Amino acid sequence: MLDSARLDHHRLLRTGLPEAVFGENKTVIQLAEILPALLRRHAPVIATRIDSMKAEQVCAVVKELTYHQTARLLTGNTQHIPRGSGRGTIIIVTAGTSDLPVAEEARLCLEYFGHETTTIYDAGVAGLHRILAHSELLQRASVLIVAAGMEGALPSVVAGMTPAPVIAVPTSVGYGAGAGGFAALLGMLNSCAPGLAVVNIDNGFGAACMAAAINRKELPCPAQ
Amino acid sequence: MLDSARLDHHRLLRTGLPEAVFGENKTVIQLAEILPALLRRHAPVIATRIDSMKAEQVCAVVKELTYHQTARLLTGNTQHIPRGSGRGTIIIVTAGTSDLPVAEEARLCLEYFGHETTTIYDAGVAGLHRILAHSELLQRASVLIVAAGMEGALPSVVAGMTPAPVIAVPTSVGYGAGAGGFAALLGMLNSCAPGLAVVNIDNGFGAACMAAAINRKELPCPAQ
Amino acid sequence: MLDSARLDHHRLLRTGLPEAVFGENKTVIQLAEILPALLRRHAPVIATRIDSMKAEQVCAVVKELTYHQTARLLTGNTQHIPRGSGRGTIIIVTAGTSDLPVAEEARLCLEYFGHETTTIYDAGVAGLHRILAHSELLQRASVLIVAAGMEGALPSVVAGMTPAPVIAVPTSVGYGAGAGGFAALLGMLNSCAPGLAVVNIDNGFGAACMAAAINRKELPCPAQ
Amino acid sequence: MLDSARLDHHRLLRTGLPEAVFGENKTVIQLAEILPALLRRHAPVIATRIDSMKAEQVCAVVKELTYHQTARLLTGNTQHIPRGSGRGTIIIVTAGTSDLPVAEEARLCLEYFGHETTTIYDAGVAGLHRILAHSELLQRASVLIVAAGMEGALPSVVAGMTPAPVIAVPTSVGYGAGAGGFAALLGMLNSCAPGLAVVNIDNGFGAACMAAAINRKELPCPAQ
Amino acid sequence: MLDSARLDHHRLLRTGLPEAVFGENKTVIQLAEILPALLRRHAPVIATRIDSMKAEQVCAVVKELTYHQTARLLTGNTQHIPRGSGRGTIIIVTAGTSDLPVAEEARLCLEYFGHETTTIYDAGVAGLHRILAHSELLQRASVLIVAAGMEGALPSVVAGMTPAPVIAVPTSVGYGAGAGGFAALLGMLNSCAPGLAVVNIDNGFGAACMAAAINRKELPCPAQ
Amino acid sequence: MLDSARLDHHRLLRTGLPEAVFGENKTVIQLAEILPALLRRHAPVIATRIDSMKAEQVCAVVKELTYHQTARLLTGNTQHIPRGSGRGTIIIVTAGTSDLPVAEEARLCLEYFGHETTTIYDAGVAGLHRILAHSELLQRASVLIVAAGMEGALPSVVAGMTPAPVIAVPTSVGYGAGAGGFAALLGMLNSCAPGLAVVNIDNGFGAACMAAAINRKELPCPAQ
Amino acid sequence: MLDSARLDHHRLLRTGLPEAVFGENKTVIQLAEILPALLRRHAPVIATRIDSMKAEQVCAVVKELTYHQTARLLTGNTQHIPRGSGRGTIIIVTAGTSDLPVAEEARLCLEYFGHETTTIYDAGVAGLHRILAHSELLQRASVLIVAAGMEGALPSVVAGMTPAPVIAVPTSVGYGAGAGGFAALLGMLNSCAPGLAVVNIDNGFGAACMAAAINRKELPCPAQ
Amino acid sequence: MLDSARLDHHRLLRTGLPEAVFGENKTVIQLAEILPALLRRHAPVIATRIDSMKAEQVCAVVKELTYHQTARLLTGNTQHIPRGSGRGTIIIVTAGTSDLPVAEEARLCLEYFGHETTTIYDAGVAGLHRILAHSELLQRASVLIVAAGMEGALPSVVAGMTPAPVIAVPTSVGYGAGAGGFAALLGMLNSCAPGLAVVNIDNGFGAACMAAAINRKELPCPAQ
Repeated sequence: MLDSARLDHHRLLRTGLPEAVFGENKTVIQLAEILPALLRRHAPVIATRIDSMKAEQVCAVVKELTYHQTARLLTGNTQHIPRGSGRGTIIIVTAGTSDLPVAEEARLCLEYFGHETTTIYDAGVAGLHRILAHSELLQRASVLIVAAGMEGALPSVVAGMTPAPVIAVPTSVGYGAGAGGFAALLGMLNSCAPGLAVVNIDNGFGAACMAAAINRKELPCPAQ
Repeated sequence: MLDSARLDHHRLLRTGLPEAVFGENKTVIQLAEILPALLRRHAPVIATRIDSMKAEQVCAVVKELTYHQTARLLTGNTQHIPRGSGRGTIIIVTAGTSDLPVAEEARLCLEYFGHETTTIYDAGVAGLHRILAHSELLQRASVLIVAAGMEGALPSVVAGMTPAPVIAVPTSVGYGAGAGGFAALLGMLNSCAPGLAVVNIDNGFGAACMAAAINRKELPCPAQ
Repeated sequence: MLDSARLDHHRLLRTGLPEAVFGENKTVIQLAEILPALLRRHAPVIATRIDSMKAEQVCAVVKELTYHQTARLLTGNTQHIPRGSGRGTIIIVTAGTSDLPVAEEARLCLEYFGHETTTIYDAGVAGLHRILAHSELLQRASVLIVAAGMEGALPSVVAGMTPAPVIAVPTSVGYGAGAGGFAALLGMLNSCAPGLAVVNIDNGFGAACMAAAINRKELPCPAQ
Repeated sequence: MLDSARLDHHRLLRTGLPEAVFGENKTVIQLAEILPALLRRHAPVIATRIDSMKAEQVCAVVKELTYHQTARLLTGNTQHIPRGSGRGTIIIVTAGTSDLPVAEEARLCLEYFGHETTTIYDAGVAGLHRILAHSELLQRASVLIVAAGMEGALPSVVAGMTPAPVIAVPTSVGYGAGAGGFAALLGMLNSCAPGLAVVNIDNGFGAACMAAAINRKELPCPAQ
Repeated sequence: MLDSARLDHHRLLRTGLPEAVFGENKTVIQLAEILPALLRRHAPVIATRIDSMKAEQVCAVVKELTYHQTARLLTGNTQHIPRGSGRGTIIIVTAGTSDLPVAEEARLCLEYFGHETTTIYDAGVAGLHRILAHSELLQRASVLIVAAGMEGALPSVVAGMTPAPVIAVPTSVGYGAGAGGFAALLGMLNSCAPGLAVVNIDNGFGAACMAAAINRKELPCPAQ
Repeated sequence: MLDSARLDHHRLLRTGLPEAVFGENKTVIQLAEILPALLRRHAPVIATRIDSMKAEQVCAVVKELTYHQTARLLTGNTQHIPRGSGRGTIIIVTAGTSDLPVAEEARLCLEYFGHETTTIYDAGVAGLHRILAHSELLQRASVLIVAAGMEGALPSVVAGMTPAPVIAVPTSVGYGAGAGGFAALLGMLNSCAPGLAVVNIDNGFGAACMAAAINRKELPCPAQ
Repeated sequence: MLDSARLDHHRLLRTGLPEAVFGENKTVIQLAEILPALLRRHAPVIATRIDSMKAEQVCAVVKELTYHQTARLLTGNTQHIPRGSGRGTIIIVTAGTSDLPVAEEARLCLEYFGHETTTIYDAGVAGLHRILAHSELLQRASVLIVAAGMEGALPSVVAGMTPAPVIAVPTSVGYGAGAGGFAALLGMLNSCAPGLAVVNIDNGFGAACMAAAINRKELPCPAQ
Repeated sequence: MLDSARLDHHRLLRTGLPEAVFGENKTVIQLAEILPALLRRHAPVIATRIDSMKAEQVCAVVKELTYHQTARLLTGNTQHIPRGSGRGTIIIVTAGTSDLPVAEEARLCLEYFGHETTTIYDAGVAGLHRILAHSELLQRASVLIVAAGMEGALPSVVAGMTPAPVIAVPTSVGYGAGAGGFAALLGMLNSCAPGLAVVNIDNGFGAACMAAAINRKELPCPAQ
């Protein structure tokens, strides 16, 4: 029933992005069946939201996979990663140490999509000098991914400092009212800074997909 | 039934703050009965949340009152305002033009409590230079009241720039998700900046009371 | 107090987008003071969220402004609109007639930012043939803005049909559970289609800013 | 106290459906007492929401039961399953692999109610070709059960393709905003496709009951 | 822009139900353009959620329409109503007087779809004798639509008394906690009665569509 | 710090009810200190919300206590239970097996308060005959406690059958939308049956206190 | 359709309380039909939630009715009010002036049910001396109804001062977070004071029904 | 990547408070790297939200740290605690035993900031005599921190008894509706007592920071 036929072979053509496997609700047995099928397709393989226990069991069976603990990713077929997919550099910014898993998920996915990234980690707004120190670097971004939990104010501040589009990722850091990333999500949706859109809480993969779609080299132009 | 006996005569002694009338749910008839009773007590009189229609009707009957439209306040007995109640200056900061009613409610109430105030209006985080331009002034505050709607990030930024306590007031500016000031409220409660506490959405009066309590000259000390 | 000094003169340099006035919480008096100041700056002028009653009063005083009823926009300085700001065409898609105000707000703002737009209106998912009929056109988009209320499924479907980035705008169409656009917002945040990010409910202006930031011609590149 | 007297003997007569045991809040001891009582009644036995640990303990005592892991069902008295209860075929559709437990719960319950089913699994809207490939089959359904998590858009799309009634089942797949199936539930309730009603999140059993009630052969007619 | 081309001509073929116009977000101008186009198509015409003020203005222009005040419907082309579309009688039950608008919307829509209906109004569960008095009649239903606000318990009680499928419609009757129909919606989704599914709050039209889909005479069967 | 001085010695005089210990957030060490102090006061002792693991550890140290597993109560000083505190019998009704823990918590607490109780368990509204069978018994109640999860409709039905006051207890039974008892709580708050008030979800102890306060023999009368 | 047959004639026998009309969703026409029917039944008549505009129109037609503005009640048949229905006095307590409409609704309904009441108005917890001054009077209550908005703390304080049962009524006073009475409702449900149950927000009528049910003279006893 | 460079060295100067480490989302490895770096800076070290398992592992590596179990704090560099930072005594009040962890977190942090504290534990409003017994002591506070769960009424009562500013901390004590501290949070935000502001649920550290900012000796004055 779970045969590889269900893999979406034409997705790359249609959307410009390879298929990735959302691992959260999949069993080890399902992953051990789907991932080898993807590996056989000579394209980079990514499975997201894999906890370390599941990863260990899958890797024991599918030897070609590598596990990235902070990002909770399984990857494979590194040799098939495309090069130079992007027009510029994608900068990934985080507010605090706790936003690292989401930022790393985005960074590694972009690497597998063939895009160049730079990171500015731990630049939350309660100490403004930390992000102001990077204002020149921010000007050079083609796209920015800004991950923040708690009050989620960093994307607003960054979007006010640069003309590049900002993808805001709320993270499920925090507690009490606004726990689970809701304060950050609502804050980002209500930002009055220009050039900012939001993906779901902790959705580092989604942010990477949007960044890749924006940064793609061969942007279709009416003139072509 | 609605006689003046219910006014809380000892509140000033107990809490150091005069009684103010919360006008939102009161009828013109109730206000026209309660406010003259307060005026007879030789103390500054404040009624909050009075829309202009109600204000006009009450002022027609109780001539000694003044209406402040932006702040939606009725005040009276100006001659009884105490002087020099505070140890320092209270600075009131807003993110945008739409936060003015709440900020003005706080500012006028503090004036009636006998405290000195300074204002920094329209300094939202999407244009950081606006608040950074005031960083020296912020150092001189005894207490700060920071009102912001939308993503509500300004109090976090201000609290990271000054050692004085910050009272954050979410305002019901915004729309969609987080409408009614909820994004701002949640953001402020989740702030990771030190020395910050929150009052209810649009509660300029409550912010003024807290600021006055903090800034009171004769702070009771165990040694004294 | 409300002098034009507070206008953010460097915003265009910093963010690549002209300042627009969020009209919802502003009084006619405030608008009649701010908008002429903007008109004097020789740049396109936009004020969003202006209901027709307010618009009439403002236009009576500030003759150079034009009102767009469906989009609820006041605009001016048409002669200063830049030309050819974008690398490609931005396609705006709506699910139903009720999403028109939001889509038109986005379309007119983009026109004032100097970007080219095409529209596909009334292509909701309950009649799939309506969006499938445009599949070739969708391939030619540089960026897409997809506005939908109710179940908010259209952006997912569109993002699965094209490699260009999709900006999803939930609209406050609907009733009962999910009223106010919440069903659409949550659906879009949970989309499993790649290359999709979300702005706040009814935020046509925000969608236009993000689309313009993505579509800007002079994308900063590390090599330059 | 927990004697079998409380079993609802007339339920089949009243509602046309056999009683099933909702296992989630029941202890092993309660199940080991109730299920044998049902087995003695010469009718198909179903207990839903039984995790594998509980199942193992119950089956060790009540040997006549079979456990279905994906569907989390205990069943018994297979020999008493009615045949040909339905007027047509019930088609069960899912958006993704993660919706399988809910779909299988519905499918097995329908089998025990004596209805014929066909399944179309893994046909989410981000790859429209997957559901379009089955459009002819969809025409032949008597009733459809469509299970989807995330944005929950599949039932709208299916209901727009077929005249048969669609029972939409939101599943608790997803994360962040809309986690727990709320995005899918709200989306389905706000669907503008005709001929669609919703059951609770993950309620595969409820969907099966509704489908069986609709598909029953001996529909009471005014002529009888 | 708003030409009749966007009307979904094949909807009747695809879904077995004529297109109806959701009037809530449409202007008088839009309705006065769309409805005559539908009238020209020689099929029954229904526009839902039309308040009496809008109705008056539209009827002044489009003379062929009739307004139904309680149901808030505009209808036309009565002469084209199909006859005998259904296999049996659809019974519509309400808990209280306040549920009438929703029930009448459902009843009139079903009449326009060509189905026979019977009504049991004002049979809330706080006086059980009211619904028990109709228990025989309930047995004769082909489908039931049960509308209730407040605690929303009536559909559970009815579904326990009859083998026919029950479509539960929460109504926005009530106040305080659970206002807007949420208590009723949640209650109906949590019903443990068999053979019950739910449509959105106040969605009488949606309930009618589902009831019509279930009650259609020519149910497609694999054998045919 | 945790000395017994903090026990509220005058509570019985003030409120007519002995102090009970809310065990949920207390450690074994805290319980092992507080409960012996209460035992020394020659009054019945009750500690609520004690899971079996905690109970075992506390009972190992404090030998005079008895654990009631379904009700999750620790009790002691049975010999000091008052007799005949009540004017009549308190009837406890539940909708399903899963409501037993809450009902038993209420029943045992009432026993320790010296009130007589009768129980009607498993009488949910999807099979009305179950509660109708007890209609005569319901007339004899002095007070009723009705516990129900899921749609929470049973208290409405019961309150419509009897003149005695009904205390409705929502239980955290159910799943999906309305999980955690919220559907039941909202339903009960919105009940239109007369003579019904609600306590918090799963608050069997609170229901017992209210029932005891209502049923107290020596009700203060103006004549005394 | 709206004939008087639907009035619940046996409600008084079953529940001990006369039927009252919930006026909020009823039209003037419906009220003008239902209320005369009730007046003819020689029992006290009450219609709740009638705004002054509706009241004026109904009273113009049905001359025997009296309107109570604060309580928003229409009453009639005063001559049929029973006397001495209660065993003791019901005390109604409010926190502030804004809670008066709810308290007065409860007080007048109880008067029509034949119960004696005493009121303690304006005794909120921010000035504890106000409620402490009445501690002796509180001891004499048979039942208490305590209405409070804002933080809703008054019922907890009162329930800690008296052995009589307390019916807590949250009122929709307040703003921002907790607006609509939700802060008060949640606070009351979470009260740790004994002998307290809650009715819905602003439900003065429901509180009166519960109080009357508790205070009824002829409480059914098993011995009788 | 996680080098100590990211520690915010100038925070003490800017905000008057030393940096503390929020331990909840940090791994043992991250803590074992950050804390020694802080210890080398000759200032008091605090890490909050450290569960006992994590604490044990960190202490095994970093010997200079002490673990405080109730407060869930790791502290170090006790010899560098400043003395006499405050102008007066900060009083910490709790409603119940379950609020102790939050109160102790606040108390220990204040000790490390160099402020004097006094505690009043277990003074909930259901037994008013407990807080009234301390009314004289309350007058002597410079600032108050009041922690309460459940209905969260204690801060209102305390703020009505003293002129000092009150910092209200909702705690995640309670269950059912309002679980997780939401009832307490909403209640505190809606308090009508003067001189009260709120921090996030369970945020003892935030309360301590605000109290320290208010109580700082060298308050900046305009005269200086």
